[in-house]
Amino acid sequence: MQMFKQITVFGPGLLGASVLQAVHKHGLAKRKVAWERDPKRAKLCSEQPWCDVAFTDISKAIESADFIVMATPVDTIVDLLRKIGQHIQPGTLVTDTGSTKVLICDEGHHAIQDPAHFIGSHPMAGSEKSGFEHSSETLLEGRTCLVTPLPQSDEAATEKIVHFWEALGMQVTCLSPLAHDDAVAHISHLPQILASTLCAYLETCEPPWHRFSGSGLRDTTRIAGSPPDLWKEILLQNRTHVLQALEGYEKSIRSLRTALFENDPAKLLKVLKQGNVYRDKLDRYIKHQNPSL
Amino acid sequence: MQMFKQITVFGPGLLGASVLQAVHKHGLAKRKVAWERDPKRAKLCSEQPWCDVAFTDISKAIESADFIVMATPVDTIVDLLRKIGQHIQPGTLVTDTGSTKVLICDEGHHAIQDPAHFIGSHPMAGSEKSGFEHSSETLLEGRTCLVTPLPQSDEAATEKIVHFWEALGMQVTCLSPLAHDDAVAHISHLPQILASTLCAYLETCEPPWHRFSGSGLRDTTRIAGSPPDLWKEILLQNRTHVLQALEGYEKSIRSLRTALFENDPAKLLKVLKQGNVYRDKLDRYIKHQNPSL
Repeated sequence: MQMFKQITVFGPGLLGASVLQAVHKHGLAKRKVAWERDPKRAKLCSEQPWCDVAFTDISKAIESADFIVMATPVDTIVDLLRKIGQHIQPGTLVTDTGSTKVLICDEGHHAIQDPAHFIGSHPMAGSEKSGFEHSSETLLEGRTCLVTPLPQSDEAATEKIVHFWEALGMQVTCLSPLAHDDAVAHISHLPQILASTLCAYLETCEPPWHRFSGSGLRDTTRIAGSPPDLWKEILLQNRTHVLQALEGYEKSIRSLRTALFENDPAKLLKVLKQGNVYRDKLDRYIKHQNPSL
Repeated sequence: MQMFKQITVFGPGLLGASVLQAVHKHGLAKRKVAWERDPKRAKLCSEQPWCDVAFTDISKAIESADFIVMATPVDTIVDLLRKIGQHIQPGTLVTDTGSTKVLICDEGHHAIQDPAHFIGSHPMAGSEKSGFEHSSETLLEGRTCLVTPLPQSDEAATEKIVHFWEALGMQVTCLSPLAHDDAVAHISHLPQILASTLCAYLETCEPPWHRFSGSGLRDTTRIAGSPPDLWKEILLQNRTHVLQALEGYEKSIRSLRTALFENDPAKLLKVLKQGNVYRDKLDRYIKHQNPSL
């Protein structure tokens, strides 16, 4: 079902290229274009079956586009939105895939003016891997996509963005950019920090203990393999919410440490059980969403 | 290849039953016996193809055993070792599967006297699931097993234990009980604490955010689904090392928080990169050990 004449994806990395592949699979756009800064990678991208052509030139990339997806690192999205703002076709729909939303949606709303529209998105389908070599036409399927319109955003544009992600098989929820940034600070950025700081600590103190590791350490630290540069920018952009989440979390780990220090089995069990209750809830939800897991 | 006339496994749960299944698969013991406190579960266990008979009576369970594996929760192992000490056949080899080793190995050495021998083991092949319903004949394959003899332990007995776990397809490393407890405090107990305290925190503060979660939260928190009662005992038994590990870890998370609070991209990147280096090392090791992953 064709929704767009031309989709242009900025940054055909893991996520951007997966969007193009899924659009190709579902036939959602007649023409599939990418913008890629690096000429060598642009050429490689042009050779893929799911990409008609990749440009290094911004104006060529957006010429004729009626749908634009910014899938570049979060710290580059605002600049790119400002750059394309003056040149896009009237009526063009613009979204992004950034992990933070307050700044991007505010700036996007100003940069992309009616009769074009910017509506922020966050398809939560990352991986610790990066680059279009790891992209896939099914990466987004069954995953959550958060769509974050502003109160003043165009309703029809929001509906079309929701419809687009749903057409790629995603479960879409709409919420405000602020609620989004608060939520992901807790359920995405905080887990990333725990995985990274655990690994950073083990790197400083370790004999070759990693040779004894089991699947617990493996799974708990998987996302520490994510690109540090991307995550540095995400954490800085969502700094206020992440600092709040960290403060709350540190209370939780301190309460366990105190229970252990005081040799208090009941208090220790209480924290572990509380964690267990949440994990059960999460597990039931995951299994409900993906019965194949 | 038959190594023993009769193996008796105390506590045929996830790990204990997986040991029996693997022993059955590899033909390592002529007779496979279990000790299970609960009569109903003992009956269920007796009906499995990998168990000749399960007793609720300790003396019946160890009569004729020349190899005994304690696979009960860590806080019950020492008591059980003391109980069987006076009744086992001369020459019987005894080991355990507990996640802590200093206390168990000290007490085990005193309870099981020459010409019988106790050598501690820690097959690192847990899961967040428990119960023999989740056991499997391949759970142990390719996994790490730490064997922890004391300086005064019988060398032939140690060699036989090493040989046993290797025969089940495990990668065995010998180290002292103290070095073991220090290592697992960092690479097993600390990850468990992070997963549990993250979930405990999210349980206290959350709107239904878990509905937005991606694979990052799922993997980072998987082991928070482990039985709280078992983990309470493990953490208490390894209290000193775990408190040291926690203290070190909290410095790592605080240094990231400070970098973020001070808006210091270079410092933030340094922590994330350090974590990334360790994770890469761990990942290479895991792939080297299990090329199929």
